[in-house]
Amino acid sequence: MTDDRGAKSASVKVVEEKDATRKVTNIYEEIKTTLGIDFVHNMYKALAVNPDYLELTWRKVQAVMGNDGKLGKNTKDIVALTVSIMSGCDYCIGVYNDAVKRAGLNDEALLELYGVIDLYTGLNRLNIGLQTRTDEKPWHGCGGGR
Amino acid sequence: MTDDRGAKSASVKVVEEKDATRKVTNIYEEIKTTLGIDFVHNMYKALAVNPDYLELTWRKVQAVMGNDGKLGKNTKDIVALTVSIMSGCDYCIGVYNDAVKRAGLNDEALLELYGVIDLYTGLNRLNIGLQTRTDEKPWHGCGGGR
Amino acid sequence: MTDDRGAKSASVKVVEEKDATRKVTNIYEEIKTTLGIDFVHNMYKALAVNPDYLELTWRKVQAVMGNDGKLGKNTKDIVALTVSIMSGCDYCIGVYNDAVKRAGLNDEALLELYGVIDLYTGLNRLNIGLQTRTDEKPWHGCGGGR
Amino acid sequence: MTDDRGAKSASVKVVEEKDATRKVTNIYEEIKTTLGIDFVHNMYKALAVNPDYLELTWRKVQAVMGNDGKLGKNTKDIVALTVSIMSGCDYCIGVYNDAVKRAGLNDEALLELYGVIDLYTGLNRLNIGLQTRTDEKPWHGCGGGR
Amino acid sequence: MTDDRGAKSASVKVVEEKDATRKVTNIYEEIKTTLGIDFVHNMYKALAVNPDYLELTWRKVQAVMGNDGKLGKNTKDIVALTVSIMSGCDYCIGVYNDAVKRAGLNDEALLELYGVIDLYTGLNRLNIGLQTRTDEKPWHGCGGGR
Amino acid sequence: MTDDRGAKSASVKVVEEKDATRKVTNIYEEIKTTLGIDFVHNMYKALAVNPDYLELTWRKVQAVMGNDGKLGKNTKDIVALTVSIMSGCDYCIGVYNDAVKRAGLNDEALLELYGVIDLYTGLNRLNIGLQTRTDEKPWHGCGGGR
Repeated sequence: MTDDRGAKSASVKVVEEKDATRKVTNIYEEIKTTLGIDFVHNMYKALAVNPDYLELTWRKVQAVMGNDGKLGKNTKDIVALTVSIMSGCDYCIGVYNDAVKRAGLNDEALLELYGVIDLYTGLNRLNIGLQTRTDEKPWHGCGGGR
Repeated sequence: MTDDRGAKSASVKVVEEKDATRKVTNIYEEIKTTLGIDFVHNMYKALAVNPDYLELTWRKVQAVMGNDGKLGKNTKDIVALTVSIMSGCDYCIGVYNDAVKRAGLNDEALLELYGVIDLYTGLNRLNIGLQTRTDEKPWHGCGGGR
Repeated sequence: MTDDRGAKSASVKVVEEKDATRKVTNIYEEIKTTLGIDFVHNMYKALAVNPDYLELTWRKVQAVMGNDGKLGKNTKDIVALTVSIMSGCDYCIGVYNDAVKRAGLNDEALLELYGVIDLYTGLNRLNIGLQTRTDEKPWHGCGGGR
Repeated sequence: MTDDRGAKSASVKVVEEKDATRKVTNIYEEIKTTLGIDFVHNMYKALAVNPDYLELTWRKVQAVMGNDGKLGKNTKDIVALTVSIMSGCDYCIGVYNDAVKRAGLNDEALLELYGVIDLYTGLNRLNIGLQTRTDEKPWHGCGGGR
Repeated sequence: MTDDRGAKSASVKVVEEKDATRKVTNIYEEIKTTLGIDFVHNMYKALAVNPDYLELTWRKVQAVMGNDGKLGKNTKDIVALTVSIMSGCDYCIGVYNDAVKRAGLNDEALLELYGVIDLYTGLNRLNIGLQTRTDEKPWHGCGGGR
Repeated sequence: MTDDRGAKSASVKVVEEKDATRKVTNIYEEIKTTLGIDFVHNMYKALAVNPDYLELTWRKVQAVMGNDGKLGKNTKDIVALTVSIMSGCDYCIGVYNDAVKRAGLNDEALLELYGVIDLYTGLNRLNIGLQTRTDEKPWHGCGGGR
């Protein structure tokens, strides 16, 4: 009896493209076309165990990320990376570090982003420790100059 | 002996403007001028217990947030809000919800931002649960269309 | 001088079964018998550096998890997996992904669990961002239909 | 100029039932009917600023929570509470503490649930500190007795 | 039917001293004597719903915190406060901010502690974002000078 | 086109010592001298992409950690490790597990530290779940005996 724990793509048995039902195949094709890639990544192959959940997730992702909206795609990608770093999801950090670079952020800009995250995780925790009370008057962020 | 736990601005005794030493007063004035406010907020008044730490923090905040850099001030403020929400720092969320609104995000844009955060905290945790392995080939984020 | 950082079972030197004192050996035997395994896993071998802490932990684990109680063992295992995913403890996620499968959850049920976690981490963060105030009247969860 | 920060239901201006568009009104009615309540809670009234996002969220909630599925509604509610506690979302904890009680968990069962959460957040962090390596052989949770 | 959500000490009905069974009364007395207080705090009164869990928790607390051990009680209290700040548990932060002050940390020392927490939450998140690989050779912390 | 994702030291291209500008070289030398090591670790080599951010970070680290202050270097290192464990930063946990050992904590003391972290992450989450209200009177930590 072999122990194949190291070899798996995910904690559930993923649905490979050749084994997919028609419904799943259709979504797989839509994913590949939309994202401009020639394979389906592990996350969606895992979700395909439950085709309805796969569809629900893919539709929500497209509704939220598949258009510029008011923030713009670049800013949304930066927020997606920030959230992934805060969640400590290594898989997602890898994907979004790549994504924001491809979208035009060079290493210096990436480091600037990490710098904002570094600063605010520190300040957040400082204020949580201090149990700082809301100020009597509103103010508008640390940067100033507007 | 009274119990004044509810009345305090923070867990340490804050330094009010009228009680500040010259060094602290100078930083207080710089904060007010730079941020365009007529008071010093509770966080900095708490840090003033240790003037060197107050100065170090204020200088770092200015170096990171006080210029457009490569990301631009608006994007930095959006990242600051995102980080604060992920840290669960109620004080900071309040300040930055106000800050991004003042910088031009209306309620609809703010909700769009929350939507990205909602989506990715969900996807992050899903991949952490799935223990998704890195894909064989790189891809570039969920949004596509570039 | 060799660097064996990669080879260790844990950050402390674990107590192997052959090196254990009588007290530790007795607990090791109890662990193996109770859990139906023929080895002691790395966590308990690390705790054995402090036999009292090993005992305290093992007793608490048994008191909390070693009986059905009111929730039932299956539900407790599902909660244990949920907590491990939320904590981002990769070691524990691996153990409990296996545990709930062995207890009868197939891949589809596991994906359903991840779906609830995905949904609520998203909604939680959304409400933290929104700083939603408590509703005037109580209500009873998002699912309805009871 | 008044400062109404304390009086708001959320960080965005919520859409009251009387001010809702037809689309939003229809979803509001569906929410009230499905959940058996005579009001719309603050979270959905805030999402209604963006009717598409409101609809997307409500549909996902119903798809995940509105049926027994394989886990059963009670277990899903317990997981929803567990996730909310791990996220530290006070609003959601309040709602789901109420929800699981109404679904039949008395105070003793609730305390048993907190006990599992207490145990595993502790063990998780212990293993994260220990940097425990994956065991050579699989095992199946701390409870044993199966 | 009144809604008393705001008035409760906790999410479960706490066991007041006058209503306690003999077993619970004995533990309550031990808590008061050991901690040198003339009342039982809300956490233990909530745990008393399940007397075995109350006892288990109190015994573990005493085993871990009720002696100097190798780290010393002051350092343990500082760690307890640090953990509480990282968990974002407002109740516990309040208790331990008071505890370390009473144990001798003045406001300046407390701010120094927050400074270390501020620094490392920032550096931690920076390295999580950078996905920094383990260095080829070991080194020993950022402070140096040993 | 090769995929070198596995081979990188960090998500940005690190600045090796031989490629450093004079400013960066000077800081690198100061780091090596201060920490008593003959190489620069990956974190600082990544920050060097932005020399000002490298300098800012190194100066803050020295200001906070490079002196005994009121808490003492050993206690600061213990807090740094605790924070890193709570953040789940594997890189930082490795460095600080080594650091506190080198500073004199043996495996038993390290396990005692993990025990405090285990206990309080559990109690924190328990109180977050219980939504425990602040007690009417102050008390001073769980350890007692002072």
